[in-house]
Amino acid sequence: MINEVSSNKMFGGLHKRFTHRSAACDCDMTFAIYLPPQASPQADGGTLPVLYWLSGLTCNDENFSTQAGAQRYAAELGIILVMPDTSPRGVNIPGEDDSYDFGSAAGFYLNATEKLWCNHYNMYDYIVKELPDLIEKNFPADPDRQSIFGHSMGGHGALTIALKNPDRYQSVSAFAPIVAPSQVPWGKKVLTGYLGSDEDSWEEYDSVALINGGKRVDHILVSQGKADDFLAEQLKPELLEAACKEKDIPITLNIVDGYDHSYFFIASFVEEHLRYHAAYLNV
Amino acid sequence: MINEVSSNKMFGGLHKRFTHRSAACDCDMTFAIYLPPQASPQADGGTLPVLYWLSGLTCNDENFSTQAGAQRYAAELGIILVMPDTSPRGVNIPGEDDSYDFGSAAGFYLNATEKLWCNHYNMYDYIVKELPDLIEKNFPADPDRQSIFGHSMGGHGALTIALKNPDRYQSVSAFAPIVAPSQVPWGKKVLTGYLGSDEDSWEEYDSVALINGGKRVDHILVSQGKADDFLAEQLKPELLEAACKEKDIPITLNIVDGYDHSYFFIASFVEEHLRYHAAYLNV
Repeated sequence: MINEVSSNKMFGGLHKRFTHRSAACDCDMTFAIYLPPQASPQADGGTLPVLYWLSGLTCNDENFSTQAGAQRYAAELGIILVMPDTSPRGVNIPGEDDSYDFGSAAGFYLNATEKLWCNHYNMYDYIVKELPDLIEKNFPADPDRQSIFGHSMGGHGALTIALKNPDRYQSVSAFAPIVAPSQVPWGKKVLTGYLGSDEDSWEEYDSVALINGGKRVDHILVSQGKADDFLAEQLKPELLEAACKEKDIPITLNIVDGYDHSYFFIASFVEEHLRYHAAYLNV
Repeated sequence: MINEVSSNKMFGGLHKRFTHRSAACDCDMTFAIYLPPQASPQADGGTLPVLYWLSGLTCNDENFSTQAGAQRYAAELGIILVMPDTSPRGVNIPGEDDSYDFGSAAGFYLNATEKLWCNHYNMYDYIVKELPDLIEKNFPADPDRQSIFGHSMGGHGALTIALKNPDRYQSVSAFAPIVAPSQVPWGKKVLTGYLGSDEDSWEEYDSVALINGGKRVDHILVSQGKADDFLAEQLKPELLEAACKEKDIPITLNIVDGYDHSYFFIASFVEEHLRYHAAYLNV
């Protein structure tokens, strides 16, 4: 069961927020969904393709919803957008709200195994299984036409999820993704915290490690601002590019001059990403 | 002198925030500006037209900046966008922060005459004189090509300012504007508070009263959501329509089904407003 929190008409469609009880995260979760005009009962458009957006650190379901401008293109292209939260909330784990890059708003799209976190921090299962089931049950979503994209931590989520489920997602793209968390400070902190210190267990949540281990997708689109403060230390897209080259995975890595890590950057290239996914989703 | 607070590349141009000392408001003020790609020194595009945006109650310079998506079209059309704050801030007037619809974030784009407010709450002078001077001095802005638009309280500001300065603004438009503040609760409260109880003094900040008194512009564009919770009690666009009809002022009043008072509504129609102004600004 899902409970509607708000509904706003936008570009002829409806932008809505819902809460629901999540089994994977054992807490109430919030997600936003944009239903384009083609999804209205009057349109009788049958089922529509779905594009999942995964946000970055510090975000919830509202950042992309209000700042990226993606609904403009989803309305034109007839794509349902789904924008989940970035972690469980209010689950009373000691320290869950102490830092911006671990715990609340930093779920990292994995299933935690450490004792303190494993009962709630299962964003991987939530995004890959529970949420799509919910979406398909409640909205005119086509289970055979799904794609996924995201930003920063959410770019990491989109890439790892697509690499591990190439048959479930028609396409994947990312803005300024964390591509090799095992090798960078943000990643080392959260992987240790959620999975423990055995670095072998980190590999299934590390895009570069997954590709090196043989996982693949048909194509990857990445947009990366050259003026991004996190580029050199945390993001390192060159590691993804090298891994893709080694394994013959086609990648379009657009390094764009002057752009930073913000939603001003995302808004500037969201049209390109929507049209990219639309081509794969065959709309 | 203006002090840059932030600069973010967006749609090939730059979205910037500045603070400066305002003489009109006798305090530090913040504004945002979007400089389209045509404004870059490399583009050598000469001066560009400027479109001023006035936000509504509770807003500051960031709401429209981050949520409307207008930069996409300003970049295409070669228009500079200027997005000021909605009131003086932190001027230590008793009660300034007590309500959402009076004081901070509710400057109402007028010059206050009441003793408590008149030293700071002079948003009319700030928007019409001080800010344009600053913009023209610091950016490649064409003083002969200016237009103005806004939302709710800011729609009121745009309409009254354009009606009182028809030679300064090439065009005016509004989203869900307050059109007759003298006749509605929001307006009566703030006009009494800033101007006192002599209702004659309210007329120069009331679009319907200004039109009835002979002020005019060449054309008015208004977008109004039919599902706007404030429509019947606070906005009353039919009063503006009737006044325009009486005085033969052409008005396009688009009442749009299902849309509310939010930025989801604004984002949906901002392209139409930008293209409307572009036609008058001759870009």
